[in-house]
Amino acid sequence: MTEQYLMSPDRQPSLAGVERAAKKIAAILPATPLLPLEVDGTTIWCKAECLQPIGAFKIRGGWHRLTDLTEDQQKHGVVAFSSGNHAQGVAWAARKLGVHATIIMPEDAPQAKLDNTRALGAEIITYDRMSGSREQLAADFAAQTGAVVVPSFDDPWVVEGQGSCGLEIREQMLARTGSEPDQLVVCCGGGGLASGTALANPDANIVVVEPEGWDDMKRSLELGTIVPVEQDPPATECDALQTLMVSPITFGILRDRNATGFAVTRDEVHHAMRVAFEKLHLVVEPGGAVALAAILAGKVKLTDHTAITLSGGNVDRQLFAKIIAAN
Amino acid sequence: MTEQYLMSPDRQPSLAGVERAAKKIAAILPATPLLPLEVDGTTIWCKAECLQPIGAFKIRGGWHRLTDLTEDQQKHGVVAFSSGNHAQGVAWAARKLGVHATIIMPEDAPQAKLDNTRALGAEIITYDRMSGSREQLAADFAAQTGAVVVPSFDDPWVVEGQGSCGLEIREQMLARTGSEPDQLVVCCGGGGLASGTALANPDANIVVVEPEGWDDMKRSLELGTIVPVEQDPPATECDALQTLMVSPITFGILRDRNATGFAVTRDEVHHAMRVAFEKLHLVVEPGGAVALAAILAGKVKLTDHTAITLSGGNVDRQLFAKIIAAN
Repeated sequence: MTEQYLMSPDRQPSLAGVERAAKKIAAILPATPLLPLEVDGTTIWCKAECLQPIGAFKIRGGWHRLTDLTEDQQKHGVVAFSSGNHAQGVAWAARKLGVHATIIMPEDAPQAKLDNTRALGAEIITYDRMSGSREQLAADFAAQTGAVVVPSFDDPWVVEGQGSCGLEIREQMLARTGSEPDQLVVCCGGGGLASGTALANPDANIVVVEPEGWDDMKRSLELGTIVPVEQDPPATECDALQTLMVSPITFGILRDRNATGFAVTRDEVHHAMRVAFEKLHLVVEPGGAVALAAILAGKVKLTDHTAITLSGGNVDRQLFAKIIAAN
Repeated sequence: MTEQYLMSPDRQPSLAGVERAAKKIAAILPATPLLPLEVDGTTIWCKAECLQPIGAFKIRGGWHRLTDLTEDQQKHGVVAFSSGNHAQGVAWAARKLGVHATIIMPEDAPQAKLDNTRALGAEIITYDRMSGSREQLAADFAAQTGAVVVPSFDDPWVVEGQGSCGLEIREQMLARTGSEPDQLVVCCGGGGLASGTALANPDANIVVVEPEGWDDMKRSLELGTIVPVEQDPPATECDALQTLMVSPITFGILRDRNATGFAVTRDEVHHAMRVAFEKLHLVVEPGGAVALAAILAGKVKLTDHTAITLSGGNVDRQLFAKIIAAN
């Protein structure tokens, strides 16, 4: 693949693109640790993305995208829509590069995510999650200002950038155990992390995990075509995974890899957060704990070399305390 | 220094010994991350030892000591006294080497630490913290059984092993920032981690931090001679730092380096735990948060290249939840 193709906005994301992203990301961010956890006598490997500077893997896609902006694009700034973690990823990259960032966030996003995005110097516009179309808002803003839209998953740069997480897992497991992962269990909203991780691990089994009622990627994979979340999805604490519909890019990669999906309940997520607290000493947000939840609930069959993502840790203090204190 | 001297029980711990320990430890434990944290516009570097498999740096000294046992010593097992983290460090190393471990623990040790030590296969004997002499109990047990005593800090192997943490900090900061640390702020109970870290960083300023009422290392350094904790020390949540008197080995190293000490209050520790939760997404136990507490309280003057230890994360769920939920 030519360098020119690897920077085309119309390209399909690829392993070569993931490798290119990983090099740029390794230059500024050390690999997050891959921590062993014993589950029923089997060791699984947990990628602690909650330890990224913004507390989530989203910093990867943001950095890969923004570092490929032209000089002219940099002058006009970027606009992103996000419940919080992608917002912080884009804002972090923008601040580091001196680019103006505008973020369209749902008005019910966790206070911690709103505060942190603002603290990173981004401008915030809020909208109503269930009625407003954030894609339309972003497109309108871009048309008015000339800003480049940085989608949270429907974008080749973003998928490749998140895929650098999967590449680190592959390299770290090989170094630690002598084997590459044969199965990756990944938290899934729009599927950016899952599809990028799939590209980075071409021989592994890919499993995506979503919260109950928001398992549209699971259902889309089962049906072989993209379907949106069902009408009136239930309230969920997994704000990072509340995607109304996945994209052809992420779905296509996962479908071609015969990925399967599972949905987890609120109680299963809470239990996983307590296990991450007690055994790994990590703060994991509900949406970042769904992969671990599916494993602890026995929904995903363990293989000899399973790795999972703990994809974020941005959770309000009161909610975390309530979950951790419960039995 | 000869290999023989580096294994003598009567030696003084040294940088060469720390380097020897670090090599053995790196072979089984990847370096814990060194995470940046912005404090009043200055970046400090936080060594996340709460991410060790047992949730604390104590795994280092335990591994260095037990891997140097003779075959005959291995057969007779080891005995250690500890409020919990050292217990788990020794138990972890013992299980990995197939050595029998007996641990003498205070009966009021946190349930999590008692449970985890037992789960690692160690035998536990409890005693009353304020009346029983754990040193005497361990010595009696060793005389009866032939077990080797592994003290929690008063031992050249243990100091050198903990020092490997300081060596990792030095190497990681050099790789990340181009500079070695010029100041290390270290959580201090008996001073094993602080003195080992001092050996590993011969040119840095060393600061030790203790909980209020348990600041005997601070007072000893000020007086130039070892003094015990004052009569009837206050209750503290920093169970890992409740040492009644430091040792000539650890005190001697710190005195020769002109180390200084600070004491922190319960509120300062709680604030530090909340900051570690929100900004670093780490679970830090009270005793592991004192160094950060001293910095956030403005007690320690920040330098250009300050590093601190977040030395452990073994804290009961209910206590953590209460602290995190408070304002």
